Parts: sequence; structure tokens; C-alpha cells
Amino acid sequence: MITKEDIEKAHGKIKPFIHHTPVITNSSINEMAGAELYFKCENFQKIGAFKIRGGMNASLSLSPDQLAKGLATHSSGNHAQAIAFAAKTLGTKAYIVMPSNSPSVKVNAVKGYGAEVIFCEPNQLARETALQKVVDETGAAFIHPYDDDRVITGQATCVRELITTVPGLDTIFTPVGGGGLLSGTALGVHYFHPSAKVYAGEPEGAADAILSFKSGKVEKAPYVNTIADGLLTTLSERTLSIIRKHVEDIFLVSEEEIKAALRLVYERMKIVVEPSCVVPLAAVLKNKNQFQGQKIGIILTGGNVDLKKFAEWFKD
Amino acid sequence: MITKEDIEKAHGKIKPFIHHTPVITNSSINEMAGAELYFKCENFQKIGAFKIRGGMNASLSLSPDQLAKGLATHSSGNHAQAIAFAAKTLGTKAYIVMPSNSPSVKVNAVKGYGAEVIFCEPNQLARETALQKVVDETGAAFIHPYDDDRVITGQATCVRELITTVPGLDTIFTPVGGGGLLSGTALGVHYFHPSAKVYAGEPEGAADAILSFKSGKVEKAPYVNTIADGLLTTLSERTLSIIRKHVEDIFLVSEEEIKAALRLVYERMKIVVEPSCVVPLAAVLKNKNQFQGQKIGIILTGGNVDLKKFAEWFKD
Repeated sequence: MITKEDIEKAHGKIKPFIHHTPVITNSSINEMAGAELYFKCENFQKIGAFKIRGGMNASLSLSPDQLAKGLATHSSGNHAQAIAFAAKTLGTKAYIVMPSNSPSVKVNAVKGYGAEVIFCEPNQLARETALQKVVDETGAAFIHPYDDDRVITGQATCVRELITTVPGLDTIFTPVGGGGLLSGTALGVHYFHPSAKVYAGEPEGAADAILSFKSGKVEKAPYVNTIADGLLTTLSERTLSIIRKHVEDIFLVSEEEIKAALRLVYERMKIVVEPSCVVPLAAVLKNKNQFQGQKIGIILTGGNVDLKKFAEWFKD
Repeated sequence: MITKEDIEKAHGKIKPFIHHTPVITNSSINEMAGAELYFKCENFQKIGAFKIRGGMNASLSLSPDQLAKGLATHSSGNHAQAIAFAAKTLGTKAYIVMPSNSPSVKVNAVKGYGAEVIFCEPNQLARETALQKVVDETGAAFIHPYDDDRVITGQATCVRELITTVPGLDTIFTPVGGGGLLSGTALGVHYFHPSAKVYAGEPEGAADAILSFKSGKVEKAPYVNTIADGLLTTLSERTLSIIRKHVEDIFLVSEEEIKAALRLVYERMKIVVEPSCVVPLAAVLKNKNQFQGQKIGIILTGGNVDLKKFAEWFKD
């Protein structure tokens, strides 16, 4: 069980390696929402995403001997960059298993931090086999993207900053993919600001968390089709049990609603964010009546985008 | 002659109506430049651009009787939005003359602030004739985008904030179009931080200021072809004489260099800026040896972009 003290300690440990990211507001968007929205800008975080918090906390939890053997993970997203950056910063090696069809922009970002990339066939079995092989050969420590208490504890530090910067929040929103950020946020709010309620936004085109939240067991999405490509993973037993205990509800939003919210953030807030980021904003705007007049914190999770995608996202 | 006290007074007057914009840094870009770059983010300013400073100062310089008759200008860019916003904020009318071929996104932004838009043929004579007609009919006060001491004084408040936030700058860079921001910045540095040198960046595809700077008279660009569409205007006698006196040099950059700098700002800094913004960054990166190890302030002028343009800017 992750405790209040675990989160406080993690925060103290990772602070020298991360940014205390700013919180920004926008009067036009507040007007549209009929609420006060406070955006915690993890797109300005080291490596361009909140994932460095969990990755760094897990890495700093290793013994010197363990650390010296390196870090390993499977990810084609921001967690891969987090582990690569943590390894570089702490002076050890990173082994990142990525599917052979990963976009070169993501592969290059990971290699840019000096990590070794091991390609595998793009399926779950190949990914796990390749990872096990690397771990067996090198003795590197496996750090899962979200099914790991050290990672969840690290992600919890983000909301701890948010509620210190903005006192009196009624509601806190994150997106949900594998549930590392959502479960960490829910625990952080539970311990440090229990009067607030925690909600998540999820794309209709990757609607597994809402099903799992309702049934109580890890479910798969009925279909997968979304530009929010950071939210394609499914919950684990670990994240699901925290989420069922401490999260109020999960809201679904359509691709059109995600694209409209993405446009709003680029046009009004003038910041670069990933589509996964804006799913909570889309959920707030869709469910205005429920959140009328509230002070709402939203974690903007990251800003690592392939600029070529802009043509597709903003074509209308 | 604009005095130190004029700038101080202007700053005090406009402060309640504008944002004190943040200054941000980026370690990867610093590494590339071999210098410390401090970006003053006027893309986060009210109306999304520094132009509100000059527009608001000019508007607040009017007598109550003058103000009641309204504000008028010709512009299809950020100055139009500045005057429209100033009029709305101060409870008067705005009359904006815009070329009939203005993009609808710009027309709608101005109308969104409640301004009346008067369309004219897209040439200088039609624009001046239409403006004169509006002024004659309504008695509205004409506020020129840059050939106006009140506007230049307002723009000078931006660098005053920058040098207060970041002491000890060696160099300060702005882009140059009509020269309102550049001349205001040069005066601000002259009065408040005279040890720093002021430079400008200009696109090769709108290279009028550099010619005027050298010859001493207002020149036209040899050809016009640039994505930095905020920099198409030519200097006035007024801005040229300040620039010749207080600006060190003007650097030209190519379209490829502008696009590369634009990509850097989006990918590394995660902020939305107009192409005109990044011309100084492109100039610093092109002339690295000259600026090695310096503390350099760069004014990022605005972030009002038509998202459809992304497809063109980031296609490679």
C-alpha cells in the first residue's frame, strides 16, 4: 500500500531532477466552461511529459548495485524517454524494447538520450519476450510504465504540486490509459486534499478503463480508434483497485470532442500538447452542468508530438 | 522625442489591462546556441501578441471626448485585434479597415471583440481612402500600427519587463517589420539598460529594414516571399531614425532557417508562436560565433496562428 509518506519522500528525491511546472489559466476557456480551470503544464516537464516523475522515482529506489546494471522497459511512448533520461542522468545504461513499427521520431528521441533500443514484433508476447531476454542478459532492472508502486508514487507528486499552487480545488481531472497517473493522482488527493473529487476522461475509441471501473475486472476496449495515442494501454489489477477506491467517475469523449478541445488549447492557450492531454478538458466542456462554478485542476500530461500530425489534427 | 518618463508612465497606465508575460528558457536550445537565451513570451499576452501594449497606450492617451468617438485603424494583423480589444475594454467603438482578401480567421477574431470591419481593395491607396472616410464620418481617432509615438512608447514597455525579470542581458533581439517594436525596444534599452546591444532579425523574403538601415532612407523589399507574415510592412521615417540611432545591426535569415527555428520552438519549448517570432532565434543560431556565451533576451512577439498553416510549415 502506497502511503502519504511514500509520496512525500518520492517528491523530495525526484525534485532535483524535475521541473516544478507552471499552472496556467485562460479566461476564454473559463468562460466557455462556466468554471475556473487550472492547467498543470507537464508538457513543460523534463522529457516533455509527467512520466519522468515515476521513471525517476523508480530509478532512485534502486540500490547502487542494481542501478549500475542498468534500466529496462518496453514502451514506445513517453515512459521510454523517461527511463532513457533517468539512466543518462544517473549515469547508467537504458535498454528500451520498442515495436518495430514505432515512428522514427520516437525512436530517435529515445536514442537521443543515449539509450539502447531493442526492436521487437508489434505484439504483447514479442514485447515481453524481448524484455525478459534483455533483463536476463544484462541484469537491468525492469521498470513497468504503470504497474509498479514506485512509478505510481512518482506520478502522485504532480497533483501534490498542483494542490499546493492552487488551494481549494473542488475537482481534479486526468486522462486515463494504463492508470498510473490517475491512480497516483487519486492517492495524492486522498492524502493531501481529500475534500476534492477525482475524475478521469477517456476516449470513446479506447474505452477500456470505464468498463473495468464498472465491472471491477480489467477489461479490453470494445474497439480502438483515437488520436489520443498515449491512452491505448489497459489498466492493471494494481491501478484498477486504487482507481475503484478513490476515483469518482470516468467520462467518455468522442474524437470530435477531443479535436475541438485540442484546437482550443492551441488557439487560446498557445501551448503545444499531445491529444491525450485534452481529453479531460473535452470531458469538462461536455459535462458543463455538473462542474458549473467549480475550481477544477487539470493535468496536461505531455507535449511530445510529431509535428507532421498537425496536418491531420487541424485539417478542418 | 520619447523620454524615459514617457515609457515609465505608459507602463503604469497599461499595466491593469495587460499580462506581465513570463520569460522562459530551454536547455537544449541553449546548448545549440552556445549561449543563454531568455524568451519573453508575448504569445501569452492579451490578444496573443505584444501589439496590445502600443494599442492600449495610444487609446489611454486620448481625452474622454476623443475616446467616446471611437478608435480606427487599418490592419489585417495583430494591431487590428489590439485596437478592437482596447475599444471593447474601454467601452468605445472600433472601426477596422481590412483588405477584402483577409483570411476569415483574422476577420472573425476582430469581429469577436465587437469591432466594425470595413473592407477595402487590397492596396495602400484603397486602405488609406477607406480609413479617411471612416475617420471623417465618425470622428474616431486613428491609431497607426507603428508610425505613432504613443504606440512605440507602449511597445517599449515589453523590454522594460524583460530586463527587470532577467538582469544582466548582453544582447536583446526582436524581429523587424514596421519597426514599432524594434524602435520601442531600442529606446527602452537605451534608457533602462544601456550596456546591452539591440539587434533585429529580418526575413530575406521581406528585406526592407536592412536596406533602409544602411541607406538611411525608407526602402522597399527587393522581393516579398516569407511565412513570417507579420513582418511585411516597411519602416517609417519615425521608426527608421530611432533604429539607426539605437540599433546595432540587422541580420537576414532564409525561409529554411525560419522553418527550422519554428520547429525548434514547437518541439522543444512546447509553445505556439507565429513564424515572425522565431526570426531572431534563427538569426542567433546562424551567427553563433558572434553571440557565444552571451545572455540574450528574445521577444517572442505573438502566437496568433491559423492552425491550417501547420500543414505547410511542418510538412518536411
